Amino acid sequence: MKIVGIAERTVPIASPLRNARVDFSEITASVVAVATDQFRDGRRVVGYAFNSFGRYGCGGPLRERFIPRLLRASPHELNDPATGIVEPGHAVDLLLKREKAGAHAERSMAVGTLELALWDIVGKMRGLPLYRVLAERFAPPGTEAPHAVRCYAGGGFYRERDDLARLGDEVRGHLDAGYTEVKIKAGGLPMTDELRRIESVLALVKSGSRLALDASCAFERQEALAFARAITPYGLRWLEEPCDPGDFETYRAVSEAYPGIVAGGENLFSREEADNFLRYGRFGGRIVLQPDPPLAYGIRELHHIVEVALAHGVARENVVPHGGNMMSLHATAGLGLGSAESYPGLFGPFGGFSREVRVHDGFATLPEAPGIGFEEQPALYGIFRELSASLGT
Amino acid sequence: MKIVGIAERTVPIASPLRNARVDFSEITASVVAVATDQFRDGRRVVGYAFNSFGRYGCGGPLRERFIPRLLRASPHELNDPATGIVEPGHAVDLLLKREKAGAHAERSMAVGTLELALWDIVGKMRGLPLYRVLAERFAPPGTEAPHAVRCYAGGGFYRERDDLARLGDEVRGHLDAGYTEVKIKAGGLPMTDELRRIESVLALVKSGSRLALDASCAFERQEALAFARAITPYGLRWLEEPCDPGDFETYRAVSEAYPGIVAGGENLFSREEADNFLRYGRFGGRIVLQPDPPLAYGIRELHHIVEVALAHGVARENVVPHGGNMMSLHATAGLGLGSAESYPGLFGPFGGFSREVRVHDGFATLPEAPGIGFEEQPALYGIFRELSASLGT
Repeated sequence: MKIVGIAERTVPIASPLRNARVDFSEITASVVAVATDQFRDGRRVVGYAFNSFGRYGCGGPLRERFIPRLLRASPHELNDPATGIVEPGHAVDLLLKREKAGAHAERSMAVGTLELALWDIVGKMRGLPLYRVLAERFAPPGTEAPHAVRCYAGGGFYRERDDLARLGDEVRGHLDAGYTEVKIKAGGLPMTDELRRIESVLALVKSGSRLALDASCAFERQEALAFARAITPYGLRWLEEPCDPGDFETYRAVSEAYPGIVAGGENLFSREEADNFLRYGRFGGRIVLQPDPPLAYGIRELHHIVEVALAHGVARENVVPHGGNMMSLHATAGLGLGSAESYPGLFGPFGGFSREVRVHDGFATLPEAPGIGFEEQPALYGIFRELSASLGT
Repeated sequence: MKIVGIAERTVPIASPLRNARVDFSEITASVVAVATDQFRDGRRVVGYAFNSFGRYGCGGPLRERFIPRLLRASPHELNDPATGIVEPGHAVDLLLKREKAGAHAERSMAVGTLELALWDIVGKMRGLPLYRVLAERFAPPGTEAPHAVRCYAGGGFYRERDDLARLGDEVRGHLDAGYTEVKIKAGGLPMTDELRRIESVLALVKSGSRLALDASCAFERQEALAFARAITPYGLRWLEEPCDPGDFETYRAVSEAYPGIVAGGENLFSREEADNFLRYGRFGGRIVLQPDPPLAYGIRELHHIVEVALAHGVARENVVPHGGNMMSLHATAGLGLGSAESYPGLFGPFGGFSREVRVHDGFATLPEAPGIGFEEQPALYGIFRELSASLGT
């Protein structure tokens, strides 16, 4: 098979959401479409992906380096000789030629987004949902692809008006929709207001083990320690990103002071960064690691990050991909990880799962559409279809 | 004063150079021009900068986020109320609103390049070469701006043909031009060839203390240790980037095994990353730290990186900015740092210093042109002038 064209676009998400540190009013995402010369069921096989959300698009490196490099590569360089299908790992190796070491964030999103689109192609060529392809390749020996994965609803962003009332409505909506576990933002208000938010959600979900907090890197060390101490009695599921993602000493101090589980990793974009985080954070296994595949070089790098985590004594079920989209759902199921995030109703067409996915009793069923299955996510697929049409293939 | 327009462009450098890991055949740089409503000596005050070299341009984040944010900022937000002149630090604070924590490389080059262009404006508005402005602001109390700074010639890239003969010609050229210290690439050839390169240069510079090696992140741990042991007898000035910039454990192992000085930091793009490098590398002061101002958020961040270095027991003279251009020359002189790099004749119009700068006996004189003084670097100024003309101001 051959790649015949690649299109990308930067799409505004323009969300009114706000966490403890930033608002998302200018947020964008990069969408890519990778067209092949192959057809399945009468349709051209085109791979789609976007660079997750919460960070900005990566159109510059896509346009200036990585799309041209992928287009220049020959089928001989890209394809698995056994199947004739593109091999995403070969593609990443090619894309990373002529790249200096380190400074991953400058390129890892562009590379990861293209890698995910190539996995979409592999699934479509094989007629399998991506998680089944990934399970064949990456799941622990002896395990089978699951039928559903544990899944929690992320949200609880701060609102300008009626924050507590709207938070309650949102969480009730999640519980009605089949979620049992939720995560809310934390760290953006005075402590008494923070505790009021936590207690109002606990009254709905009934157990601390069903509520996680995301502090969005808001705290300096002493604030982080004070916050961790204040929430200790609630026995929450985890405390996420209490401080700067590179401040391993504060992570270590929080983990020493806090008897619960700390979480982090959505801002670590390579196995080297994950290794440093786990080594110097010294979590002793009490960590939930949250890599985001398209932000961090894609699924193959996620597999290496899981290996790094296991080597540091982190249980496979404590790797919980960030993202809340179909890509992280497939990654969670295919690599046998702990749980998937979901953002129903947030981040416009980029949030939530496809219409094939049902959430029941805290688990999400897995899709049957081949590849990632964005075709079953109508608003998002509209963006991809338009992008693909721009290629004129 | 008011910013009235900003232009940027991605310029190919297209160098035939090659270090131990990568070639530079696709390398680009981002150039920016920031036009103001002010005039000096009959000319509009326009600030210029580029994002150093060795990494790729950063046009995406410049165009999609940071130039629009800077253009939207009011003079009230940007200017120092005491002088009415733009204050680069205020600008950086504004540019970083709505940015998530961590993942610095994705934005630090775009922000740093704009910050340098704003410093160029400050120098031009005050009629002072930038290093004097920086010395007022950032130099240690009681010190005066120097008249010259220690300076070494970087180079010694691998060549496809006549590598050793051309290396000799290159180094003789540097010595004839007034340099006394040189740095060559290392780690790209078998050990015997590497030692032959080192010895051929030592025969010219006469002392190990005048030769530094740059391994460009080439080695895994055992290779790095073997290489460090092999070069120990030469007593070289430093061994630069023996391994991946994020592999602090290998840095530590090399520093423990190698009695000389290790160098690194051109791929660390924030004070947090420099702090981790120095903390976990445990160099005990035997480190030369090489931050690159436009790659790493600019001069104000460099000042913070110097503070971090001092707190870790690194002497101010062991901070040696990476870059080999007028920006790093001003930074070295203005902040009272140890030495400047120079790349005479390499990297096309982006390498080397302006015609005001004279190198003699291992020191570079400092320029008198206001600001950074790219106006006295004709080939590069041609690029900037064209960019500035595109603004139609």
